[in-house]
Amino acid sequence: MSILTVRLDPERKQPYYFQLYQAILQEIQNGGLAAGEKLPSKRTLAQRLSVSVNTVDSAYQMLTVEGYLRAADRSGFYVQPLARLTPPAEEEPLCPPPAPQPSCEFNCAAGSVDTDAFPFETWSRLSRSVMYRQPQLLHHGDPQGDLELRQALCRYLRQARGVRCRPEQMIIGAGMEYLLMALCCLLPEDTLFAMEEPGYPKAAQAVRNSGRRLVHIPLEGGGMSAELLEQSGAQCAYLTPSHQFPTGSATPAGRRSQLLQWAAAAPGRYLIEDDYDSEFRYSGRPIPALQGADRRGQVIYCGTFSRSIAPSIRIAYLALPPSLLPLYRRRFSLQSSTVSRFEQHTLGRFIQEGFYERHLNRTRNLYKKRRDLLIDQLKQTAAGPWIEILGAEAGLHLLLRLTNGLREEEMLERARGQGVALTGLSAYYQDPTLAPEAHVLCGYAHIPQQKIPALAQALGRAWTI
Amino acid sequence: MSILTVRLDPERKQPYYFQLYQAILQEIQNGGLAAGEKLPSKRTLAQRLSVSVNTVDSAYQMLTVEGYLRAADRSGFYVQPLARLTPPAEEEPLCPPPAPQPSCEFNCAAGSVDTDAFPFETWSRLSRSVMYRQPQLLHHGDPQGDLELRQALCRYLRQARGVRCRPEQMIIGAGMEYLLMALCCLLPEDTLFAMEEPGYPKAAQAVRNSGRRLVHIPLEGGGMSAELLEQSGAQCAYLTPSHQFPTGSATPAGRRSQLLQWAAAAPGRYLIEDDYDSEFRYSGRPIPALQGADRRGQVIYCGTFSRSIAPSIRIAYLALPPSLLPLYRRRFSLQSSTVSRFEQHTLGRFIQEGFYERHLNRTRNLYKKRRDLLIDQLKQTAAGPWIEILGAEAGLHLLLRLTNGLREEEMLERARGQGVALTGLSAYYQDPTLAPEAHVLCGYAHIPQQKIPALAQALGRAWTI
Repeated sequence: MSILTVRLDPERKQPYYFQLYQAILQEIQNGGLAAGEKLPSKRTLAQRLSVSVNTVDSAYQMLTVEGYLRAADRSGFYVQPLARLTPPAEEEPLCPPPAPQPSCEFNCAAGSVDTDAFPFETWSRLSRSVMYRQPQLLHHGDPQGDLELRQALCRYLRQARGVRCRPEQMIIGAGMEYLLMALCCLLPEDTLFAMEEPGYPKAAQAVRNSGRRLVHIPLEGGGMSAELLEQSGAQCAYLTPSHQFPTGSATPAGRRSQLLQWAAAAPGRYLIEDDYDSEFRYSGRPIPALQGADRRGQVIYCGTFSRSIAPSIRIAYLALPPSLLPLYRRRFSLQSSTVSRFEQHTLGRFIQEGFYERHLNRTRNLYKKRRDLLIDQLKQTAAGPWIEILGAEAGLHLLLRLTNGLREEEMLERARGQGVALTGLSAYYQDPTLAPEAHVLCGYAHIPQQKIPALAQALGRAWTI
Repeated sequence: MSILTVRLDPERKQPYYFQLYQAILQEIQNGGLAAGEKLPSKRTLAQRLSVSVNTVDSAYQMLTVEGYLRAADRSGFYVQPLARLTPPAEEEPLCPPPAPQPSCEFNCAAGSVDTDAFPFETWSRLSRSVMYRQPQLLHHGDPQGDLELRQALCRYLRQARGVRCRPEQMIIGAGMEYLLMALCCLLPEDTLFAMEEPGYPKAAQAVRNSGRRLVHIPLEGGGMSAELLEQSGAQCAYLTPSHQFPTGSATPAGRRSQLLQWAAAAPGRYLIEDDYDSEFRYSGRPIPALQGADRRGQVIYCGTFSRSIAPSIRIAYLALPPSLLPLYRRRFSLQSSTVSRFEQHTLGRFIQEGFYERHLNRTRNLYKKRRDLLIDQLKQTAAGPWIEILGAEAGLHLLLRLTNGLREEEMLERARGQGVALTGLSAYYQDPTLAPEAHVLCGYAHIPQQKIPALAQALGRAWTI
């Protein structure tokens, strides 16, 4: 085939210049056009193929940039010897994504929620109404997130969690990890971050990715010790005081007060309070947010809807202390919000019109029933007397300790043999040798009530020795 | 009022413990409870108020943490002298958000799109269908973005832009700025970034926020000069080769080839190709993406839907070269995608089912008509002979140069006097003294066709001297 007879197909999706480029490339590669050969002039080829000179020019230019043709001034385009081409890098095998876990009857990795409880009707109705009635939301919005959502959130957090903050302090972002990255941009580059040990590995990864140094501080008496924190030399501590992840403990009042004093003892110290799972407290006294007790603006409060609504709804929030606001406004003056405005307003109305509280009440009851049944059924199994239940007052998972001598790996392996995937507590330790013996996490929130007994029985079978 | 007679109101949204906390706090602050006074025991108060001991305990604990009460072991809670409280920091006036621009009849800041053209019906229908038919999308998705969207994007970019990449290389994120932050996490901390001068200030801010150093390289002959780039010592260059922002020029083929050679000349060099506004090319030859000519995996290709669909749809994408994938997978293994999965799948189907191309064709035609009319009408005004039109082949704004002696500030001020808000070209220079005289940007894509003549006349009046 000569390139003067290339068939350009108007039905194909590729534009003509690209089809022509491909045809010539093929000719060069299969030897139909030899090195040194001169190509038809752009005008000639354009006339023969009934396309514009621009189309031919585009194809020739692409091939020239890629090194297949050489443009000689005023005399035209020549085929380059293939050997003189920049050698293409070996087609490296692409890094494969991590292999999916083999499927299990019960996937009880911590953190799953029951998506059947998602309020499809309400969410869809609000979402349509926002889209049709507020088309102006297609334009750029406030970089911090739209005011309506920030106002609704402030009201809700004040009432439910005792958080004191004004909408101006609130930043909406596409997930906690993004907000932690943004926060890192506001703190000095040499800031040392203290993280809980065991703790939330996503947060540690986000902080590390931002180039900040980390120190892990072993939990003591249900929370981070202000004394160890002081000794660590950290300037900033990331905490989950209402419901520690993954142990489920709550930081006691005295300890909370000491942490606030630690922050007050030197300028530039901050506590990042991740109010993780505070929505799902089933028993014990309610624990207001640490932020509400902060009188000096040293607590950065944050939370997310990924567990209270759904993991794939990427909306989280950060309440910045006033001292960090001017820098935030400067550094993020040009950055757009990371959350679609339609979703922001759908969520804003969901909160404002009371649907969020109703949804929380419904799911809290649902999860509490599952928790109660799971605990009850676990106790009744043959392994029951050796199963100790920890961290059950709140959250979407139990911490189970086995006292019959099985080690963590054995617990996990035997559970998997019975069709139950769990996570060992040691996975949440930076230094796994610090992990106590024989503790595993069991998420239950997404397991339907009628399947809970089978789950408990499977674990009972697995752990009976 | 004694606190034994506090009225707790079941109708109020705040929980009892919080109402009780507020009531006691008020009593302390107005002197109803004096320093040193002992509070009723928890049991007594609980009985009198018909609430649980836990409720009273919560209120007492909050007040203790905040320093209003002191807990004496076994003997109860005492009011602290107010003077001994940690002095609350002065209520600092919160940093006010930037004042909105005064409104104008024509707001022609560059970058606005016509949101009336948004395909409400289709988008809403796809979005509902995704939500109802794929409830499993509520769970966590792939951190890189869901495969379906990455596949649809790869196919589209290959056909429309000549981009060669596999879905495994594609990363979906909530906006270009987020993706640039993520990308910075993959490059060494001491990487020096070269940016175009003039250039895109959002990108510079995102890179600077990530703690990376910047150098601005003056444009030369329509693009970044590989020679100046080499001299700068940068390892990474951020480019808009298809349609330079804000000048609208296209990097010529020879220059593109030199830039690729620059990247190939040392290990660890990268070109970040922001394929900004490539969707809106009205005339001249189509310019394929630089990435398609890259044989060594040194071009990082990125784009966004914020102009081709709507600014508030926060979806952008990055095609990583294979060499950066292993590090990306390690660093972001635990990070969730920043885009809601419902939106990812809505967009995926929008592309896959051909709606995106139709939408682009429709808006391209719409914007082209507006561009043609605006140019025509500007020429006809009294200032017409002195208005030079630049960067008109693509994009959503014109670059206007005035040759009658008015300076940029005068052009802007006089335009504002006639109800037209524009942006001066110097605003996009890191060093505004380098800006050429008398250039301003005029976005037109969002101005309805029938209003274009009035816009042109207003500018004509403004710039006639």
